[in-house]
Amino acid sequence: MMMNSSPTPGQADDLSWMRRALALAQTVMYSTAPNPRVGCVIVRDGRVLGEGATQPPGGPHAEVCALRDAQARGESVAGATVYVTLEPCSHFGRTPPCVDALLAAAPARVVVAIGDPNPLVNGKGLARLREAGIAVTTGICREEALALNAGFISRMSRGLPWTWLKMAASLDGRSALHNGLSQWITGPEARADGHRWRARSCVVLTGIGTVLKDDPQLTVRSVETPRQPRRAVVDGRFEIPEDARLFDGGEVIVFTARADAAKQARLEARNVRVVALPAEMPDRVDLPAMMRWFAAQQFNEVHVEAGAGLSGALVAAGCIDELLIYMAPMLLGDAAGVVKLPMLERLDAAPRYEFIEAERVAADLRLRARVPEHWRGLLRRVELPAAGTP
Amino acid sequence: MMMNSSPTPGQADDLSWMRRALALAQTVMYSTAPNPRVGCVIVRDGRVLGEGATQPPGGPHAEVCALRDAQARGESVAGATVYVTLEPCSHFGRTPPCVDALLAAAPARVVVAIGDPNPLVNGKGLARLREAGIAVTTGICREEALALNAGFISRMSRGLPWTWLKMAASLDGRSALHNGLSQWITGPEARADGHRWRARSCVVLTGIGTVLKDDPQLTVRSVETPRQPRRAVVDGRFEIPEDARLFDGGEVIVFTARADAAKQARLEARNVRVVALPAEMPDRVDLPAMMRWFAAQQFNEVHVEAGAGLSGALVAAGCIDELLIYMAPMLLGDAAGVVKLPMLERLDAAPRYEFIEAERVAADLRLRARVPEHWRGLLRRVELPAAGTP
Repeated sequence: MMMNSSPTPGQADDLSWMRRALALAQTVMYSTAPNPRVGCVIVRDGRVLGEGATQPPGGPHAEVCALRDAQARGESVAGATVYVTLEPCSHFGRTPPCVDALLAAAPARVVVAIGDPNPLVNGKGLARLREAGIAVTTGICREEALALNAGFISRMSRGLPWTWLKMAASLDGRSALHNGLSQWITGPEARADGHRWRARSCVVLTGIGTVLKDDPQLTVRSVETPRQPRRAVVDGRFEIPEDARLFDGGEVIVFTARADAAKQARLEARNVRVVALPAEMPDRVDLPAMMRWFAAQQFNEVHVEAGAGLSGALVAAGCIDELLIYMAPMLLGDAAGVVKLPMLERLDAAPRYEFIEAERVAADLRLRARVPEHWRGLLRRVELPAAGTP
Repeated sequence: MMMNSSPTPGQADDLSWMRRALALAQTVMYSTAPNPRVGCVIVRDGRVLGEGATQPPGGPHAEVCALRDAQARGESVAGATVYVTLEPCSHFGRTPPCVDALLAAAPARVVVAIGDPNPLVNGKGLARLREAGIAVTTGICREEALALNAGFISRMSRGLPWTWLKMAASLDGRSALHNGLSQWITGPEARADGHRWRARSCVVLTGIGTVLKDDPQLTVRSVETPRQPRRAVVDGRFEIPEDARLFDGGEVIVFTARADAAKQARLEARNVRVVALPAEMPDRVDLPAMMRWFAAQQFNEVHVEAGAGLSGALVAAGCIDELLIYMAPMLLGDAAGVVKLPMLERLDAAPRYEFIEAERVAADLRLRARVPEHWRGLLRRVELPAAGTP
């Protein structure tokens, strides 16, 4: 059920302005969570009157930023066209509804990339604009706009974050030598690129195996970011060492299946949140419940960086939406694999993805692939009625 | 030691004509072996006077084809510029020297992509052109021209073919399920693409394990080709079944380390060549000797399509120049790997490559990576003195 067909000549301008709005949204990649990254451009006669992107939580949304920018430039927005990457909000949150601000500015037309499945918005904003006689066009750059906010959209529509599994592997899919050596499979550029993905996430998730073996910090270090994502550990037996380096820094969440009130109290005194989510299997954390917990806590995007055990368990539990693989041009042969999955008897039982990217990062390759059904599910939820196009 | 720097404005034309000559050479990809694939374009005042590509062995080379084409069009080549992807030959082979034909046609200038390391040519052709007062430019599109004939250049300069290892793998580097199921990891387009690489090779090489397990034909089926490459099997214990499907068709070469005169005689009666190349290890074939044998028999390019055992042994023996990996967007977890290598104790002991391509083939990905030292070795051997540039 596609919403829009190939662009008519008149839509070519819409495309190019919407891309500018998307680029603006990209500039606030690391700072808007739990809000979506939104960009807005206001245009009349091929000229930008104002533009902006969502400010950190509590600050103005993209539409208001763009309207203020126009005002600061002494431009009236009346009769202009507003391009915005996500449906304007129509409810009072930490800020007043953007729709009200738009109505007050009285543009002739609003072009929106995707709808906001937030039940408080969900078409209501656009309906109000249309009632006021403003022309509304929807569905421009749908896929790009969704990719920018897959986590927010997923949380609003599925009650789940959008979760990617980051891996570093050799050409033959190995992550470490049989003796455990793994630190330098990929080059420094690929590792820095991996930090960009950590930075955009709301939480970096690992397993107790990785904590015990590598004692990682899991902070964002190679890129500048105004905020650090939370860190979280799956630790079924609650065996995390209390001096783990992970605990030096911001809040850490430990998911466990075993109770130890004394240890929990000691950790909580150190900014650690212990969450008991036992699965039916003893000493196992209920991974789907953990994902629902993340969404309930307003975590949009989860960056998983774990060993083969937790990685495989998340894949097998259907918790992974996307793979982010840094592939080094080497062969390691008989060594540790990247995911441990249950033995498959038939190929059609294998978890399948679709490639969305294969990009060189210095000597390495960044491969991205996603679960097509998960993506299409989100795409359906951001569709908006095309009615009201001028 | 780079030969040419970035092109001056005047060289932009040279680049574009040389690309046309390379495209012509591409059209004879499957038909010139053991000769190189060469393309030639003759140009004056921005107009093509004649063009051509190497004909099958015994037929005219590209330069002669292009000169005849010009003649057929009633064009004189005198004073024109000749673009040719490989240094023109200067010796009598199955055909007279191309340099003589060029001298007779008296162009003003000859532009050559790479030198021919064949000791019978190796700069001699260009020297004769220069002596005759023809301007010679070299080193345009060096890498592309070498890629077209890496096998021929390798055989002439190293006494070895250029060998690629074709693999099909999941994202986690697995080639088959633990129960051996492997037929349909990649899609039909990727399998057809694999046949293009078989078609361009001189020989498709596999191991006895694959013959026993899959009984493959190893013929080119999904693409049209005027000739089938030879098929070859590494079979240390000489245990190949005499009714293997491989033997239905053209000549097959069986490399072995064990003698069995009766079996050998029976197979030879069926167009099978049995070559004894024992290594020091009992029942093992001397793989580097096999590669030298291929080159001595005028095999330019070897396409390896084998199981993890032979694939790993060839990698470990340094016999592989390039990897050709079809990657399917799925995870297989605990299953068969693509290469079996000796246990590595240190990452810097791992065989390393450089990525040269990451291309979508329908739902799959074609990755190519090569051994940088092998490639640079060939590049050095095709360098020509830049003297004589106009």
